[in-house]
Amino acid sequence: MSTTLCFLPATELAQLLRNKEISAREVVLAHLAQIERVNPQINAIITLVAERALADAELVDAARMRGEVLGPLHGLPIAHKDLQPTRGIRTTFGSPIYQDNIPEEDSLLVERFKRAGAIMLGKTNVPEFGAGSQTFNPIFGATRNPYDLTRTSGGSSGGAASALACGLIPIADGSDMGGSLRNPASFCNVVGLRPSPGRVPSWPTENAWFTLSVDGPMARTVADVALVLSAIAGADARSPISLAEPAEIFAQPLGRDFKGTRVAWVDFGLPYQTEVTQALNSTRKTFEALGCVIDEVALDFSDADEIFKALRAWNFEAGLSEEYAFHKDKLKDTIIWNIEQGLPLIGPQLAGLEMRRTQLFHRLREFMEKYEFLIMPVSQVLPFDVNQPYPTEIDGQKMLTYIDWMKSCYYISVVGNPALSVPSAFDAQTGLPVGIQIVGRHRDDWGVLQLGYAFEQATQLWKRHPKIAL
Amino acid sequence: MSTTLCFLPATELAQLLRNKEISAREVVLAHLAQIERVNPQINAIITLVAERALADAELVDAARMRGEVLGPLHGLPIAHKDLQPTRGIRTTFGSPIYQDNIPEEDSLLVERFKRAGAIMLGKTNVPEFGAGSQTFNPIFGATRNPYDLTRTSGGSSGGAASALACGLIPIADGSDMGGSLRNPASFCNVVGLRPSPGRVPSWPTENAWFTLSVDGPMARTVADVALVLSAIAGADARSPISLAEPAEIFAQPLGRDFKGTRVAWVDFGLPYQTEVTQALNSTRKTFEALGCVIDEVALDFSDADEIFKALRAWNFEAGLSEEYAFHKDKLKDTIIWNIEQGLPLIGPQLAGLEMRRTQLFHRLREFMEKYEFLIMPVSQVLPFDVNQPYPTEIDGQKMLTYIDWMKSCYYISVVGNPALSVPSAFDAQTGLPVGIQIVGRHRDDWGVLQLGYAFEQATQLWKRHPKIAL
Repeated sequence: MSTTLCFLPATELAQLLRNKEISAREVVLAHLAQIERVNPQINAIITLVAERALADAELVDAARMRGEVLGPLHGLPIAHKDLQPTRGIRTTFGSPIYQDNIPEEDSLLVERFKRAGAIMLGKTNVPEFGAGSQTFNPIFGATRNPYDLTRTSGGSSGGAASALACGLIPIADGSDMGGSLRNPASFCNVVGLRPSPGRVPSWPTENAWFTLSVDGPMARTVADVALVLSAIAGADARSPISLAEPAEIFAQPLGRDFKGTRVAWVDFGLPYQTEVTQALNSTRKTFEALGCVIDEVALDFSDADEIFKALRAWNFEAGLSEEYAFHKDKLKDTIIWNIEQGLPLIGPQLAGLEMRRTQLFHRLREFMEKYEFLIMPVSQVLPFDVNQPYPTEIDGQKMLTYIDWMKSCYYISVVGNPALSVPSAFDAQTGLPVGIQIVGRHRDDWGVLQLGYAFEQATQLWKRHPKIAL
Repeated sequence: MSTTLCFLPATELAQLLRNKEISAREVVLAHLAQIERVNPQINAIITLVAERALADAELVDAARMRGEVLGPLHGLPIAHKDLQPTRGIRTTFGSPIYQDNIPEEDSLLVERFKRAGAIMLGKTNVPEFGAGSQTFNPIFGATRNPYDLTRTSGGSSGGAASALACGLIPIADGSDMGGSLRNPASFCNVVGLRPSPGRVPSWPTENAWFTLSVDGPMARTVADVALVLSAIAGADARSPISLAEPAEIFAQPLGRDFKGTRVAWVDFGLPYQTEVTQALNSTRKTFEALGCVIDEVALDFSDADEIFKALRAWNFEAGLSEEYAFHKDKLKDTIIWNIEQGLPLIGPQLAGLEMRRTQLFHRLREFMEKYEFLIMPVSQVLPFDVNQPYPTEIDGQKMLTYIDWMKSCYYISVVGNPALSVPSAFDAQTGLPVGIQIVGRHRDDWGVLQLGYAFEQATQLWKRHPKIAL
């Protein structure tokens, strides 16, 4: 079993499987060996179902031998974020309240991965209820950054990002309200797409019409993310906001000529750690070499802050009201704070914020009539100390809450445009990875994948795997 | 100029125009003559732009003569609901506050009708801000029912429904939060489709993500409604909830075999006027003759009541907060009451209701795995006295608010399934029309049109025009 297999792009692995040059069993065994060897250092996969995965691999192999037509992910190992209910497999949401919770049903997303032929190896770590972009919880502890084990992997899809970076899995899922598909991707040198709301339909959900939280794909390359999206996108009757375009549209070739494409190098007036700005600026020549025409533009998006915080608090209060009432002692202080921010909200205030959100949506829409893409940092800081719950200061500015350091991501969540986090640089001094964020026009998930792919082809940074994993 | 022209189906009129057997000018002149003759009795069209319409008709005719390809509605006269902003043409929203309001921009819907080649004759009457299913306001007075001038045309698209019935226009638009596309259609023997949210994208809107209010098509026949939908459906970047399927899917032939189709004859436990129940029951044999397999099923949907009332009040408070603050004396008492219902709403309560709405959505979804359609009454009463603001009692049950008599419609609004109101009978004693409501599965706008079409072919009730219009 070679480590090489664990660092092949998912698209190549899928091709080898399709051509019968390799068996699903071999693929699963290689990844299980990598998990055994590397996972103890990073703590990314917190529930492992090795026997079941091997049994599933045998079923997949038997089907392949019978010549059955399998899905686009046939034989590819995956581990699901521990916020996704998995039938018969412990699903904790990172909370001690649910540490023995065994769901009776798969989520829609898990169902789609299964249907596409992916083989579940286990679950990836999350912060309690996905709250905060730092992956730690009292059941499993923290997930570490594979490029520096003293640092955080980010979150809330930190387990997925760290596992991908180390070759424990070739593909993953994540979810994103305030940056949870993007920040961990940026911190771990992998790719995360926050798709348009409804692109990857979610079920079960408590509020089926809520557009701030989305599920989405993660992988080590943009083409692999597109491959996953081609299996998990598309309408489902269980989600009233799901988008109708069929998943197959994401299986097209990603190549595109970007000559003359207008791109806004956006300044939201947010504080950034110097190293992040340096990393961003270092990518400019690459986009220019692709043919992009770049304008530096200051954009006032500060309204997004109050809107995001209120809608997030409203949603936390709604989703965790029972846990707050009956298990408050088992909730972390930031979650209690967030629920308590939701309690005093009043209807007219929420309505006013929805109206300001609508205005912001139109402001960005009109701005993007001129610019096809926005480019900006993902996270405002480099991966920080794994023992620090969240950054309390950036570039001399105090962060007032545990989420304020995520504005660079959550400003985009508010309007719902698709956003891709793609590796952009390694900081010269610390050797830590830094991603950039490519934001597309409303519903143009395909466009951000295409630009991310072109950028990745030029930089090839995804090949710089963490030393601990080699 | 013959009245016959005014009662041709829009599909036939469009065909005559396409074949150059008739000019847009002739069509417009015929409808203007009909308006002049009949409108004073019903008060359906409250703003007329005759000269402009004739000028537009000449442009359309010139384009036709040059052989230009025109849209699916080329040359068809229309009048827009007075809630739709029309550039340069007075748009009052039925409120004295806006009696001199002249918008600088067309709404997206008006823009689409123009693009499709429709010719605007004017605006149709509405209740103040569309509130309440009875079309009266202090600027223009009430729109009367063409089958009995002492009765109401329903609302809030009452102007549109009454104008269609009398041949003043062959196609119309309406909008629907609690039944405003369905109730007036039922009262005036015409067809109204409440489409899925996002099917006909709305702009401008104050809350772009609000799914309870929708715009939609009205006409005298189902095929005409489908024709209109084929011009006004489809995605637009200005509406983040707009559905992607192209409008052309609604231009297909409507014929379908309904043999073996499972239909639920739904009983929501609501009070109905006896005549309404009789009309409904009289249609059963027609659906059976089409091949439908009908089960009578009681369905508890009472949760929808609190959800609808709260979300409506929340939306009224948000949309009319300035009018309430500065022009309270110019608002009708029911609107003041509705805004004041919205003021004390709190965030957790709204969140709880969104969660119950989600549960209701899934309950109906699961129910409709077995049944492809629900059939039920549109309105709970026959058209009532035009001087009565709303029914205060049905079948011995007191109505507590001005909207309670609309439950049969607004229960469906809550879950967002498409619903068609189609003529089903004329009450033997009063001669008043009664519609039935066909509800489809989530997003199956096409299915409800198909079943409505088959039913209409069997009944041919649309041919029974009001005597005053002949």
